[in-house]
Amino acid sequence: MRIALGIEYDGTAYNGWQRQRTGLGVQAKVEDALAVIANETVEVTCAGRTDTGVHASGQVVHFDTRADRSTRGWLLGINSNLPDDINATWANVVDETFHARFSALARSYRYRILNQLARSSLYRHRAWWVHQPLDVEKMQAGAQHLLGENDFSAFRAAGCQAASPRRTIHSLNIHRDQNWITLDISADAFLQHMVRNVTGTLVAVGMGEQEPDWIRQVLESRDRKQGGIAAPAHGLTLVGVRYPETFALPDHGTITS
Amino acid sequence: MRIALGIEYDGTAYNGWQRQRTGLGVQAKVEDALAVIANETVEVTCAGRTDTGVHASGQVVHFDTRADRSTRGWLLGINSNLPDDINATWANVVDETFHARFSALARSYRYRILNQLARSSLYRHRAWWVHQPLDVEKMQAGAQHLLGENDFSAFRAAGCQAASPRRTIHSLNIHRDQNWITLDISADAFLQHMVRNVTGTLVAVGMGEQEPDWIRQVLESRDRKQGGIAAPAHGLTLVGVRYPETFALPDHGTITS
Repeated sequence: MRIALGIEYDGTAYNGWQRQRTGLGVQAKVEDALAVIANETVEVTCAGRTDTGVHASGQVVHFDTRADRSTRGWLLGINSNLPDDINATWANVVDETFHARFSALARSYRYRILNQLARSSLYRHRAWWVHQPLDVEKMQAGAQHLLGENDFSAFRAAGCQAASPRRTIHSLNIHRDQNWITLDISADAFLQHMVRNVTGTLVAVGMGEQEPDWIRQVLESRDRKQGGIAAPAHGLTLVGVRYPETFALPDHGTITS
Repeated sequence: MRIALGIEYDGTAYNGWQRQRTGLGVQAKVEDALAVIANETVEVTCAGRTDTGVHASGQVVHFDTRADRSTRGWLLGINSNLPDDINATWANVVDETFHARFSALARSYRYRILNQLARSSLYRHRAWWVHQPLDVEKMQAGAQHLLGENDFSAFRAAGCQAASPRRTIHSLNIHRDQNWITLDISADAFLQHMVRNVTGTLVAVGMGEQEPDWIRQVLESRDRKQGGIAAPAHGLTLVGVRYPETFALPDHGTITS
């Protein structure tokens, strides 16, 4: 039987999603909790591997098991066995054609910036504090250059192992609400550090260091050294993964956190 | 010179606002940071003492000092010397008639409830997870009985040292947004544990254990044993303190977090 799970985590204490040789990584915690409930070793596959310090409210995983439990049983059981900074948000039985990674049509990330003179203790693990005033309209103008299918080599980590640097950004919206700036980005998939590099580069535009058209130059250079800094990991959250409707998964395209 | 400060903190690691004999308490951290900037011992007075685990986005304090700094200097200086779970949000020079506690016209608290089957790791320190469905309309109907000036002995901690149990609740609004329930309450002042006891008692109504009119019975009993449980501290945030406009303080009646 194949089960899909929605997974939420506070990435602050973890070296990212992936299981480490040391047994750390969010994946290891999820697999260990599932093994208790399933009474057998469980291996999970995720929709998007997140980096050290990155959070998720809408990660999706699947696993195969011989254990027979209700979806409510899986949900409550796994949550009883996970540490308090990781939880499942839903559980669904899916057919064997579902694959958390390969069935995904799009991933959505949210990057939060707190744009004010004073830092914020309550949001220290959830938002990048930028004290220089940012011009959101310029950032949005720059963002337009990234839409659609492009070679995103200029926004790719040196160690990125993806076979191709081409990705398709479906939407990239930057929104201000008082001192909060929210960057919402959806794409078919992302290269390593791509959202953080895009955010850091757009922030250089928002600060007035560069004009919006510079974003196109950076993109076309295919050279990571041309862009801005990588925005810090703790402002980033994987908020949702979209699958074909036929799988009838809960709609976590709706972003709530 | 008298200075007023807005103070924000994540209360998770602290035994409340008040300075402990051990040197802990948010107050002690604020006074220690100010002493570095002022180059002299500083004693601060707050608008509302919060309990262990309670947060603040809009705490207000004042202190007197002989040190002469710009308000920007105070703000950035104190933030450089505070631990990362406490920060100042603004600094203003005020005249000597200002008193953080006695000048306050009203305090506002926000209580957050996450009302869904699964717990939330990202909000584990900021919201009370209640998995039973809550009827917000019934909670709001019950809340009407508490408005205005009343003897709130039934919602007062055993150890509360206030001289009088009479307080005036200006507003008490309960609002649902998907799985989030927010309780916003403003009063001239609060008794110890009053917001948590009010919240826990309204949740008993929301769960259907009691009808909304029961709130009036609890209030009139003046007996803490008649009401519901105290809602846990970690869902509670002091969001703002209102002062006479003549003091021209930043409007932190506007709730943002």
